[in-house]
Amino acid sequence: MNEVKVLKDGDITWVNGFKSSGVVADIKGNGGDKKDLAIIYCEKECVTAAVFTTNKVRSRTIDVNRENLSKGNINAIVVNSGNANACVGKKGYMDALRMTEITAENLGLDKEKVLVCSTGVIGVQLPMEKLEKSIPKAVKEIKDNGGKDTIEAIMTTDLVKKHIAVEFETENGEKIRIGGIAKGSGMIHPNMATLLGFITTDIDIDKELLQNTLKDITDKTFNMISVDRDTSTNDSLIIMSNGFANNQKVTDKNSIDYLRFKNALNFVMEHLAKSIARDGEGATKLIEVKVLNADSDKDAKNIGKSVITSPLVKTAVYGEDANWGRIIMAIGYSDAEVEEGTIDIFVGDIKVCENGIGVLESEVEINKELKKDEIVITIDIKLGEATARVWGCDLSYDYIKINADYRS
Amino acid sequence: MNEVKVLKDGDITWVNGFKSSGVVADIKGNGGDKKDLAIIYCEKECVTAAVFTTNKVRSRTIDVNRENLSKGNINAIVVNSGNANACVGKKGYMDALRMTEITAENLGLDKEKVLVCSTGVIGVQLPMEKLEKSIPKAVKEIKDNGGKDTIEAIMTTDLVKKHIAVEFETENGEKIRIGGIAKGSGMIHPNMATLLGFITTDIDIDKELLQNTLKDITDKTFNMISVDRDTSTNDSLIIMSNGFANNQKVTDKNSIDYLRFKNALNFVMEHLAKSIARDGEGATKLIEVKVLNADSDKDAKNIGKSVITSPLVKTAVYGEDANWGRIIMAIGYSDAEVEEGTIDIFVGDIKVCENGIGVLESEVEINKELKKDEIVITIDIKLGEATARVWGCDLSYDYIKINADYRS
Repeated sequence: MNEVKVLKDGDITWVNGFKSSGVVADIKGNGGDKKDLAIIYCEKECVTAAVFTTNKVRSRTIDVNRENLSKGNINAIVVNSGNANACVGKKGYMDALRMTEITAENLGLDKEKVLVCSTGVIGVQLPMEKLEKSIPKAVKEIKDNGGKDTIEAIMTTDLVKKHIAVEFETENGEKIRIGGIAKGSGMIHPNMATLLGFITTDIDIDKELLQNTLKDITDKTFNMISVDRDTSTNDSLIIMSNGFANNQKVTDKNSIDYLRFKNALNFVMEHLAKSIARDGEGATKLIEVKVLNADSDKDAKNIGKSVITSPLVKTAVYGEDANWGRIIMAIGYSDAEVEEGTIDIFVGDIKVCENGIGVLESEVEINKELKKDEIVITIDIKLGEATARVWGCDLSYDYIKINADYRS
Repeated sequence: MNEVKVLKDGDITWVNGFKSSGVVADIKGNGGDKKDLAIIYCEKECVTAAVFTTNKVRSRTIDVNRENLSKGNINAIVVNSGNANACVGKKGYMDALRMTEITAENLGLDKEKVLVCSTGVIGVQLPMEKLEKSIPKAVKEIKDNGGKDTIEAIMTTDLVKKHIAVEFETENGEKIRIGGIAKGSGMIHPNMATLLGFITTDIDIDKELLQNTLKDITDKTFNMISVDRDTSTNDSLIIMSNGFANNQKVTDKNSIDYLRFKNALNFVMEHLAKSIARDGEGATKLIEVKVLNADSDKDAKNIGKSVITSPLVKTAVYGEDANWGRIIMAIGYSDAEVEEGTIDIFVGDIKVCENGIGVLESEVEINKELKKDEIVITIDIKLGEATARVWGCDLSYDYIKINADYRS
């Protein structure tokens, strides 16, 4: 696999042909100067793939996007923060549709060529008069290096800007770039919804192959993080490819170029997913759980999710407490096939439990391990060959503060 | 249904024929004077039923109890706190067996007539030399009004003593009593395991009928509470009936006496279950979620559990925040069949969401409701006729404090 080169401080507009903007629309109506409306644009129609939340209660923006994606390629995405456009009835659909219309009119496109994403308060109608005024402004502001403005505009209470751009070479030597940005501070922020991710690339690739690839990698990256188990109503991850790299179109999932692209896209998505987990509400540490030798992929995933979401495991990590009893408990109550007598548990490289029995003689080494910013918990089930990696964060006082004191 | 009379300050030894004790065995070895070893005893063999944890990682005490229950009736239960006798390999089984032997020898019984329960630190071997000395002492201390000593001995960090006794009359006028005690502060306490419940009754009842009844009511009471989703390795709920009431033996599940007993036992178990939820780690409020008109019992339960365990719902209740968006989100991501457009949500008697859309005009009334110690959230799914009630508690700073700072 040829190497993936990370482009320092890169983002979605580091990819040839993609422009974007971020402006202040005052959607929350508090007169603040935080950017809250963004447009991502390519003058060429892009082969576009997307995955959306599985929550049965969802923003109607998702319905509009599904319809437009079914009709063909896409030129632009309009995104607002500060309002999720969710749980507002039919008006939610009409408002989402209108956002694509305004954007399309100002860009000289058919409205089917525009996708729309919203993140923010649930159950409150969008302030459409403000969007009628601000979307034209956002279109005017579109520029070649607009990525950073776009990142600011999609953030809610994210503490960290989440962005990356990478480059790799095809077999024929064309340089391909992939840029990505994301927001999300907890699977859900208090009153807010959501994880949003936008990825651009200049590779020329078959649409169905791109969709399948996005889905596969999402299952191994974004679907493997959990901050608080709360799946939002608006989660959306969209990738646009404009083919500007003029590579030989990638259509074969066994071709070298495809494998290189998949490797690079996995790198980008894993980076963004881990950034979200690390920036989870109140998080002080990133936790990675590696499950080895489970009976099936489903079991490996269940075990990892059970451990990464356990409040007692999360608080133990926050307290830097070598509390492996909580880990084996969370393994035991997962739906997975496990046998207590074969379970090994490692924190970092230190074995704390062997065949279901504690083996920690001194706590000096383990306490050093627990002081790190990234805690890796490895669980060897010894029943099969399936593995999984999941990411999350610790549970701290600040999670309660952010979520309980939000309105005060 | 004839009325269930609550006997003020009652417990398990308020039932004719049941004696118990609670003594200091210093099982944690900190030289403290907290009672940590108890025996519950009836000189007559009792028809005994029990339910145990479903966690695949479990204390070996549970294996010993299953074996003894399969062999016949029971005279005594020996219980220790301070050590869960879990995740210690085969020795756990031998130690549990030895506890029943010592107890049996001192009571002049076969060891099969004794059950054993442990709650406390996981992964640490029981200090058997202390138990060899202390169990005979606990046997000597057995007395008619020993219930309160027993409650103290089984508590770990419970802040509240959980006990009740009730009385009802059979059709023939015999007075039947049921007494119960429980411990549990969170589904799991840091490093500790467990929920334990012990119920005594003097009713004469068929063993299989008693077991089925205990299981049914457990599913509606103890299995409907959640403090932190973490199912422990030691959960045990045991009921002993000695027939001292000399009622006509209850064998028919359609008889009036059976229905009266079931009603009274449900009262006792719901009381104990709610006491545990209310005393959950760091809890400031008891939350009851009522699910109405779901498509199936399974769906009703899934929806209730999804809402009662949502960290964002729990922190909103702690913050007294009328944050119904979090409730509908948790409904949406449950496995249950739901339609956003038919969901109504009430907090207390106040409707906050109708057919999936917010209807709260003023927050004055709702804020009054949220200041209460017991918050009742009613969810009307309007897809069927199944209902469920679940209980939990809010998520506060103290939950983090208890679980993260435990060792400090």
